[in-house]
Amino acid sequence: MASTVIKGGTVVTADLTYAADVKVEGGVITEIGPNLTGDTLLDATGCYVMPGGIDPHTHLEMPFMGTYSTDDFESGTRAALSGGTTMVVDFALPSPGQSLLEAIQMWDNKSTRANCDYSFHMAITWWGEQVFNEMETVVRDKGINTFKHFMAYKGALMVDDDEMYSSFKRCAELGALPLVHAENGDVVAQLQAQLLAEGNNGPEAHAYSRPAKVEGEATNRAIMIADMAGVPLYVVHTSSEQAHEAIRRARQNGMRVYGEPLIQHLTLDDSEYGHHDWDHAARRVMSPPFRNKKHQDSLWHGLAAGSLQVVATDHCAFTTEQKRYGVGDFTKIPNGTGGLEDRMPMLWTYGVVTGRLTMNEFVAVTSTNIAKILNVYPKKGAILVGADADIVVWDPKLEKTITAESQQSAIDYNVFEGKEIKGLPRFTLTRGLVSVEDGEIKTREGHGEFVAREPFHAV
Amino acid sequence: MASTVIKGGTVVTADLTYAADVKVEGGVITEIGPNLTGDTLLDATGCYVMPGGIDPHTHLEMPFMGTYSTDDFESGTRAALSGGTTMVVDFALPSPGQSLLEAIQMWDNKSTRANCDYSFHMAITWWGEQVFNEMETVVRDKGINTFKHFMAYKGALMVDDDEMYSSFKRCAELGALPLVHAENGDVVAQLQAQLLAEGNNGPEAHAYSRPAKVEGEATNRAIMIADMAGVPLYVVHTSSEQAHEAIRRARQNGMRVYGEPLIQHLTLDDSEYGHHDWDHAARRVMSPPFRNKKHQDSLWHGLAAGSLQVVATDHCAFTTEQKRYGVGDFTKIPNGTGGLEDRMPMLWTYGVVTGRLTMNEFVAVTSTNIAKILNVYPKKGAILVGADADIVVWDPKLEKTITAESQQSAIDYNVFEGKEIKGLPRFTLTRGLVSVEDGEIKTREGHGEFVAREPFHAV
Amino acid sequence: MASTVIKGGTVVTADLTYAADVKVEGGVITEIGPNLTGDTLLDATGCYVMPGGIDPHTHLEMPFMGTYSTDDFESGTRAALSGGTTMVVDFALPSPGQSLLEAIQMWDNKSTRANCDYSFHMAITWWGEQVFNEMETVVRDKGINTFKHFMAYKGALMVDDDEMYSSFKRCAELGALPLVHAENGDVVAQLQAQLLAEGNNGPEAHAYSRPAKVEGEATNRAIMIADMAGVPLYVVHTSSEQAHEAIRRARQNGMRVYGEPLIQHLTLDDSEYGHHDWDHAARRVMSPPFRNKKHQDSLWHGLAAGSLQVVATDHCAFTTEQKRYGVGDFTKIPNGTGGLEDRMPMLWTYGVVTGRLTMNEFVAVTSTNIAKILNVYPKKGAILVGADADIVVWDPKLEKTITAESQQSAIDYNVFEGKEIKGLPRFTLTRGLVSVEDGEIKTREGHGEFVAREPFHAV
Amino acid sequence: MASTVIKGGTVVTADLTYAADVKVEGGVITEIGPNLTGDTLLDATGCYVMPGGIDPHTHLEMPFMGTYSTDDFESGTRAALSGGTTMVVDFALPSPGQSLLEAIQMWDNKSTRANCDYSFHMAITWWGEQVFNEMETVVRDKGINTFKHFMAYKGALMVDDDEMYSSFKRCAELGALPLVHAENGDVVAQLQAQLLAEGNNGPEAHAYSRPAKVEGEATNRAIMIADMAGVPLYVVHTSSEQAHEAIRRARQNGMRVYGEPLIQHLTLDDSEYGHHDWDHAARRVMSPPFRNKKHQDSLWHGLAAGSLQVVATDHCAFTTEQKRYGVGDFTKIPNGTGGLEDRMPMLWTYGVVTGRLTMNEFVAVTSTNIAKILNVYPKKGAILVGADADIVVWDPKLEKTITAESQQSAIDYNVFEGKEIKGLPRFTLTRGLVSVEDGEIKTREGHGEFVAREPFHAV
Ligand SMILES: [Zn+2]
Ligand SMILES: [Zn+2]
Ligand SMILES: [Zn+2]
Ligand SMILES: [Zn+2]
Ligand SMILES: [Zn+2]
Ligand SMILES: [Zn+2]
Ligand SMILES: [Zn+2]
Ligand SMILES: [Zn+2]
Repeated sequence: MASTVIKGGTVVTADLTYAADVKVEGGVITEIGPNLTGDTLLDATGCYVMPGGIDPHTHLEMPFMGTYSTDDFESGTRAALSGGTTMVVDFALPSPGQSLLEAIQMWDNKSTRANCDYSFHMAITWWGEQVFNEMETVVRDKGINTFKHFMAYKGALMVDDDEMYSSFKRCAELGALPLVHAENGDVVAQLQAQLLAEGNNGPEAHAYSRPAKVEGEATNRAIMIADMAGVPLYVVHTSSEQAHEAIRRARQNGMRVYGEPLIQHLTLDDSEYGHHDWDHAARRVMSPPFRNKKHQDSLWHGLAAGSLQVVATDHCAFTTEQKRYGVGDFTKIPNGTGGLEDRMPMLWTYGVVTGRLTMNEFVAVTSTNIAKILNVYPKKGAILVGADADIVVWDPKLEKTITAESQQSAIDYNVFEGKEIKGLPRFTLTRGLVSVEDGEIKTREGHGEFVAREPFHAV
Repeated sequence: MASTVIKGGTVVTADLTYAADVKVEGGVITEIGPNLTGDTLLDATGCYVMPGGIDPHTHLEMPFMGTYSTDDFESGTRAALSGGTTMVVDFALPSPGQSLLEAIQMWDNKSTRANCDYSFHMAITWWGEQVFNEMETVVRDKGINTFKHFMAYKGALMVDDDEMYSSFKRCAELGALPLVHAENGDVVAQLQAQLLAEGNNGPEAHAYSRPAKVEGEATNRAIMIADMAGVPLYVVHTSSEQAHEAIRRARQNGMRVYGEPLIQHLTLDDSEYGHHDWDHAARRVMSPPFRNKKHQDSLWHGLAAGSLQVVATDHCAFTTEQKRYGVGDFTKIPNGTGGLEDRMPMLWTYGVVTGRLTMNEFVAVTSTNIAKILNVYPKKGAILVGADADIVVWDPKLEKTITAESQQSAIDYNVFEGKEIKGLPRFTLTRGLVSVEDGEIKTREGHGEFVAREPFHAV
Repeated sequence: MASTVIKGGTVVTADLTYAADVKVEGGVITEIGPNLTGDTLLDATGCYVMPGGIDPHTHLEMPFMGTYSTDDFESGTRAALSGGTTMVVDFALPSPGQSLLEAIQMWDNKSTRANCDYSFHMAITWWGEQVFNEMETVVRDKGINTFKHFMAYKGALMVDDDEMYSSFKRCAELGALPLVHAENGDVVAQLQAQLLAEGNNGPEAHAYSRPAKVEGEATNRAIMIADMAGVPLYVVHTSSEQAHEAIRRARQNGMRVYGEPLIQHLTLDDSEYGHHDWDHAARRVMSPPFRNKKHQDSLWHGLAAGSLQVVATDHCAFTTEQKRYGVGDFTKIPNGTGGLEDRMPMLWTYGVVTGRLTMNEFVAVTSTNIAKILNVYPKKGAILVGADADIVVWDPKLEKTITAESQQSAIDYNVFEGKEIKGLPRFTLTRGLVSVEDGEIKTREGHGEFVAREPFHAV
Repeated sequence: MASTVIKGGTVVTADLTYAADVKVEGGVITEIGPNLTGDTLLDATGCYVMPGGIDPHTHLEMPFMGTYSTDDFESGTRAALSGGTTMVVDFALPSPGQSLLEAIQMWDNKSTRANCDYSFHMAITWWGEQVFNEMETVVRDKGINTFKHFMAYKGALMVDDDEMYSSFKRCAELGALPLVHAENGDVVAQLQAQLLAEGNNGPEAHAYSRPAKVEGEATNRAIMIADMAGVPLYVVHTSSEQAHEAIRRARQNGMRVYGEPLIQHLTLDDSEYGHHDWDHAARRVMSPPFRNKKHQDSLWHGLAAGSLQVVATDHCAFTTEQKRYGVGDFTKIPNGTGGLEDRMPMLWTYGVVTGRLTMNEFVAVTSTNIAKILNVYPKKGAILVGADADIVVWDPKLEKTITAESQQSAIDYNVFEGKEIKGLPRFTLTRGLVSVEDGEIKTREGHGEFVAREPFHAV
C-alpha cells in the first residue's frame, strides 16, 4: 500500500502543538512521529499540520424556486478543499408532506460527485406519525443523528412550538441532537409585510426585517423547549449578542447548548446592506443578516470563552442572476452566501493572527469540536493514528487577496472580495488524497463518501 | 355638604410621610392640613393615612364551565374593602368570536353590585377585522386602555405570536397598553398530556406542568414582540426569576416593561402542592403556580429595586366543591385563588414589618404605581386635594390570624389560613363612604362606579 | 407679606402633570390651584412649572495647589440659577489630619456669597479617633448626613478599604449615608507612572490612566463594603457600564445603592481627548474621564429603568490658565469641568426632547430623587404647599446655542460650546426671589442659606 | 527494559473514549493499541484507563505556628496515589523579607520523600527589588511559572493592590501566570475583630467572617488588575456564585481567567459549621469556608459549562490537636482540610454517577485542563505515547465508605467521613510504578520527582 508522509511540520490539534511527521496509508493516518519515511513526501516545513476543517452547515445544490443553489457537491467540495475544509454536512430537506427517506434518496443522488466526505442533517419541515416513525429509521439505518428545525420561513419550512417540542422529545428517545434555525417566523413575516407596504423593497429591508431581537427570542424559546424535552440543543448560525446571551444563560443553568457563529457574521457587518449597488447588497442577503460590531465582539468572545463552540458557513451560493429574482421585492431574494473556500483562511487571519484565538482553539472551532458534537470524532477532526487522513498542511506565510475571479465556487462574486488573507493550505488531503498541492487544485470528483454518524446514548 | 375628617394620623404616600388631617367632602379630598374640623371625625391616632389599595388583576364572577367563580362584584369588593383595597380592575373576556362590546355589556351587568370603584381590562381572545375595529371603540368610548393577551390556555383563550403582534401594533396606534399572561401554552399542553398519560393526575402535577422556564420564555417572547411593535408592556402575575430576568434585561435595554408579582407568589411556596390533602393542594391551583424561595427572593428584590412595580392578587375564587371538578384530572381544576382581602395586610406584614419595603414603597406598589401605569392617577392612588377619597387608615398595631371563618370572601377556605398578620385597616373609605369602621364592615352594595381610563398619548 | 403668583403654567413634578397657578409668599409655596392672584404675576403660559434643580455634587472655590477653582459660591450659584438649578451640595474637604469641624468653618466662610441655597457633604480624607468622634457632631449639630470617600487620588484624598469600612460602620450608627468616588487609586497611580514613563504626558493620557474597568472595580468593592457595614451607598459620578452593572447587580440582591451620572458623561464622549488642541482636551480633563457611546447608552437606560437615580455635574471649574499647569504632565492638570449652568437644559434637550425620559422623570433625576436621597424632601424638590419656593418656570420653546461668551460661569470656555439647546428657564425662583426673569439674571449675592439635613433613622 | 501492559480497559481521556491496551516502559507510555503484551499485565477489564489526577493546590508540611501541617510529602502523596492522583503542585511560601530562592530550597528539602511527582507554585508574600529580580530566576532556572498572591491574611501573607499590580506586570514580562487567593483581607480582619468582640469565638464565626461577597469582591478586583497588567489569571479555591460570576463576566469580555473549585466546596456545605461538636466544626475550618447549596450548584454548572476549569483540594491537613489551638478564638484555628485521597472518588460519585459531568469532563477537570493551564501537558495529563505513565485504572464498580480509620492521610479524621463512594482506582501508576494494586498501597518513598514547568510565551 502506497504511503504518503507529511514531513517536517508542526502538528497542531485542539489539544497539542508538537513537531512530528505524519504517515498516511490507505486513507488513514498510520503513524505519527519523527523521521518517518514513505513513498510520497509532502514538505511541511514551516507549516502546521492540522485536522482538515469540517463545515457543519452547507446547502449544496439546494432546491429553490424550480432551480438550485449554484454550488453543487462538486464545486462546493472543491471550494471547501481549496480552503482546507475536508468534510461538509449538508441538510436533507423534505418538502412538507414528503417522506424523510425520500429526501435522503434525493440528497444521496446529488452527493455522488463530492470531492470530499460529507454527511447529512435531516430537516423536520412538517410533523405527523410518518415523520415520527421515519425518524427512527433515519437514526438507526441512515447514519443521521441530527434533526434541523426552522423557526422561521413561515408558510414554508417553519414548524411551530408544538411540533418542535414533539420532535425534540423524539430526538431524546432516539439519541439524536436537534438543531434550530432560530428566528421568530411570525414576527419576520409581519415585518416583511410592513416594509413592503411602506415601499421598502430593497435588500437593506431584508436586514430590517430580521433584527437581532427576533433571533434572540427564538433562541431562548428553542432552549426552553429543549430543556423541557430533555435533550441538548445546537443553534445554527448564532449571529447576535441576544442569541449568545440566551445560550450562555442556559449553559450556566446546567444545560448542554451549542452555538455556531458563521465566518460571515464574525467578519462582515450590516453596513454592507447600505451599499448603493443593489447587486452588492443582495449578494449578502442571508438569514440572519450581518450584524454590527457589538455583535461581532460578542461572537469572538464566545469562541474564546467556550460559550460558542464552532464556526460554520451556511454556504448556499446563488449567482447574481439568481439574486436578481428579488428585484423589487427583497423577500424573493434567495437567501444565502458562499464561504466554504474562505472560512478557514478568514478565521485564521482575523482570529489567530490578531491574537483572539490560539491555534489550538482554531482547530477546535473549525474541526474538532464539530466532530465531537456531531459524533464523528476521532474518525474526523483528529490527527491520531487510525483517524481518516483528512488533513490540512497550513502555511502561515502564504498570502492572497480574496477575489471571485480566482475562486473555486461557481458563482460570479465573493462576499469577502478584497480581503487580504494570511494563512492558507499548502496541502489538503481528503482521506489521503492530495487535493491541494502547493496551491494547485487536484480534486477527484466522486472521491467523497457519506459519513454515517451513530446516535448518542439514548435513554 | 357633609364633611368627614380623618384626624390625628400620619399621611403616607408613595412620596411623603407627614402628619396631617384629611378632609373629605362629596367623595373627594378637599383639604389636607393640621387641625381640620368637620361633621364626622375619624380618629387616626397612631395610624397611617394612605391611598386605598388598587388591585389591578381580579376575576369576579368569572364564567367557568357553565358556572362562575364564586366571589362576585359584591362579595369580592366587600373583601377588598375589608383589607384596605378600594378599587379593582377586572377582565372583560369575550368568547372567541364574540364582540368586544358585547363582552363589556356582560361585565357592566355583573358589576352593578360593586361596593367600591372598578375598571376593566379587555381581553383579546381572538383576532379579526372586527376585533381590530372594536378596539378603537373600546379605547375611545368605553374608557378601557389596556388589552390582555393569553399566551397559555391552548384551545381556549390563547393567541399566537402573529395575533399578538397585530394586537400590540393596534395598541400602539390607539395609545393602549398590552398586558400578557406569559406562559408557553403549547408546551404546557404537551406537559399536561404527558403527566396525565403517566398517571399524574393530582394537583401537584399542575405545578409540574407549568415550570418557571415556561413562564420565562413567554415573558421574553412577549417583550420582544412589544419591542418590535413599539409599545410598552405589562406582564401580569410575574412569578419567577426567569420572568423577572427577562423584564429587567428589557428595561436595561431602554424598554418600558412592567411586572406584577402576586401576593401569593411573594408569600406562599410550591411545597403547598405536596400536601397530603387533595383539597388543600387543589385550592392553591392557579397559573402560574407557586414557586420556591429562590423565586420569592427575586420578586421581593425586584419590588425594592424598582424592576417590578406592582402587587396584585389575580383574585379568582372557587369553592372547594368547584375545585373538585378536577378530581382525577388536574387540568380540570378551576384555576384561581382568593387574595383581595389579604393582599395589603400580608404585604405589610411580610414586606414592611420585615424591613424589605419602606412604607412609601408599600403605597407605591399597592396603589400609586398601579394608578400611574393604568392612567388613573391622581384621581386614584393619591392623597391629594381633588383626588377621590379612596383612603385606608392603617393601624400598624392591629393584629389577626387569617382564617376563612371570619373572611368576607364567599368561599370556604383561605390560602393564607393561619398566617399571623400585623397591620390592618382601622377605616376604609371608598369615595368618602366609610366601609370599614373599627373593623366593622359597612359596605354599601352598588356604591362602586366604573372608572373610565383615558388612552395614553397615541402616535 | 408680598405675594408672587406663577400663572397659567403646567405644574410638572416627579409624580404629576397638571395645570395650576402657584402662589409664593415669604419664600415658600402657599397655594396651588386655579385662578390665583397676587402682588406680582409671572406669566407661565406655555411653560412647565417645576421644582428647581438640585445639583448634589459641586466643588465651588475648591482649594487646589495654593489657589482655588475659579467658580466660587457667587459665580457658581449664579450659573446654577441661570440654568434652573436652585440648590447645590458642595464638599467640605478636610486636609489629612485636619478637624472636620474646622473644614466646615472654612466652607461656611466661602459660602456666604451664595445666590441660592446650599448644603454640604463632609469628606473623610483620613481616619482616627478624632474623625470617628467628630462625625457624630457633624451629623447631630452641623446638619450634614452624608460622608464622601475617595478611593482614588493616592497620596492625597484616598482612603483604604480598612478606613472605608470603619467609616461606613460609623455612618450606619449615625444614620448617615456614605458616598464614594469609585476608582482604584493604586492602579490609577501605576498607570499614570507608566504612561509618563512612556512619554505619554498629554491630556489624552488622562483618559488612558482611568479606564472604565478601574471604576467598575472600585464601585463593586465599595458596594461590598457598604453591604458588610450594613449601610446604603451613593456612588458619585457613575460614568461606565461596569460601574452601573455593579450597582444594578447589588440592587437586584436587595441592596440600597444609588448611582449619579453626570450630564457630561451622558452627552460628551472620549473623542474629545483626541483633539489636536491641548487646551481643548485639557479643559475636559475630569475623573472619571468621558467614555464612549456604549457607556452613554448604559447611563441613559439606567435613568429610565430606575437603576440610576440622579444627574449631577461635579462642577469644578478651572480656567485654561489653571489647566495649563499640567502642560508636560497630565497628572498635574487640575481635574474638573463646569456644568452647573447647562445641566438642566442639556438633559432636557438630550433626554426629554429625544423621548428618552418623560418630563416627570426629568424632574425626578434633576431634583426630587436627589432631595429624597439627601433627606431634604419635600422642603426641596417639590411643588407642594409649604415647600421652599425653589421653582423653575421652564419654557420648552426657548432655544440657544451654548457658548462661553454668554455664560455666567467665571471661566473662559464651556465644554458644551456649540451645543444647541431647546428648553430653558423663563423664570427661576430661589426661595421666592426671582433670580432669572425672562432670561435676565437678577441674582442677589448672599441670598442663599445653608440647608441642614437630618440624619436618617439610625439604629 | 521491563514493560507493563494495562490490558482490557477502556481508555478515557479529556477527548476520547476507546478500548485499548496501554504499554508502559521506563516510566513512560510507549504504546497504545489492541493486544499488547508485556512483562507485567494489569487487568483493566471493566475499568477506565485515565490520566492520573493532578492536584494543583496542596500544602504539605506547611509551616504553621512553629509546627507543620501534618500531612507531609510522604503521607500526602501516598494519600494522593491511593485516590488516583499522581501529581501535586505545592506552594513555596517565603516569609516576608525572605528570598524566593531560599524558600525553594526549603521546599526542595521537604519534598525528597514524595511518592509521586510534584511541582511548585511560588508565593509572592512581600514586594521589593529583590523579589522583582528573583522572579526571573524562579521562572528561568527553577521550573516555576506560577506566582501566588494572597489578598487575605492581613498582617501575614497579604499583598495590597499596588504590589499585586506590580507582580502581575512582572508575570506578564516573564511569561508566568499569577494565581490569587481572593478574599478582601481588610474586611475579613474587621469582621473577625467584631465577631470576637461580640463573643463569637467558635468555629461557626469563621464562616461568618468570610462571606461569599468578600470573595466575590476580591475575585473581581484581581481580574481587573490582571486585565490592566495584561496577563491571564488563575483564581484558586473559587467557592461562590459571586466569584464565579466575576470570572465568567471577565471571560465574556475576552479575558483568559481560570477558576478552581475545590471538591470540598462542591460536596460539603456550611451547615457543618453549626455542628454541636467544636471539633467537628473546627476540622472543617478552611478559607473560603463551605457555602450553601446555591453556591454548590453554581460551581457544578461552571464545570459543565466550561466557565470553571479545574477541581483541586487545597489539602492542608491539621490534626484535631492542632485545630484545638483555636479553642476560644476561631481566628487561631489552623485553616485547612484534607482531600487529596478523596478528590477523585468524590468527584466521580457526585459528578459522573449523577450525570452532571461526562467521564471525559471528569478527566479534563481533574487532570488534563490542569496540565494545560500549568504548562506540563502532555507530559502529564495525557494517555499518549511519550507521556509520563501517570495512570489511574478506574474501576467504576468499586465502592467504599470514607472513613478516617482506613485512610492514608496522617490525620485523625476525614471531612468526608461516612460518604459512600462508587468508583475507585484498581491500579495507580506513577511514572510506571504501580503504587496502588487492587486496593493495596505499594508506594515507594522518594520515587516522586520535581516537574519543571516552562514559562508561557513571554512578550
Ligand atoms: Zn438557517
Ligand atoms: Zn442553513
Ligand atoms: Zn393569568
Ligand atoms: Zn388573571
Ligand atoms: Zn470625584
Ligand atoms: Zn467631585
Ligand atoms: Zn487560600
Ligand atoms: Zn491554599
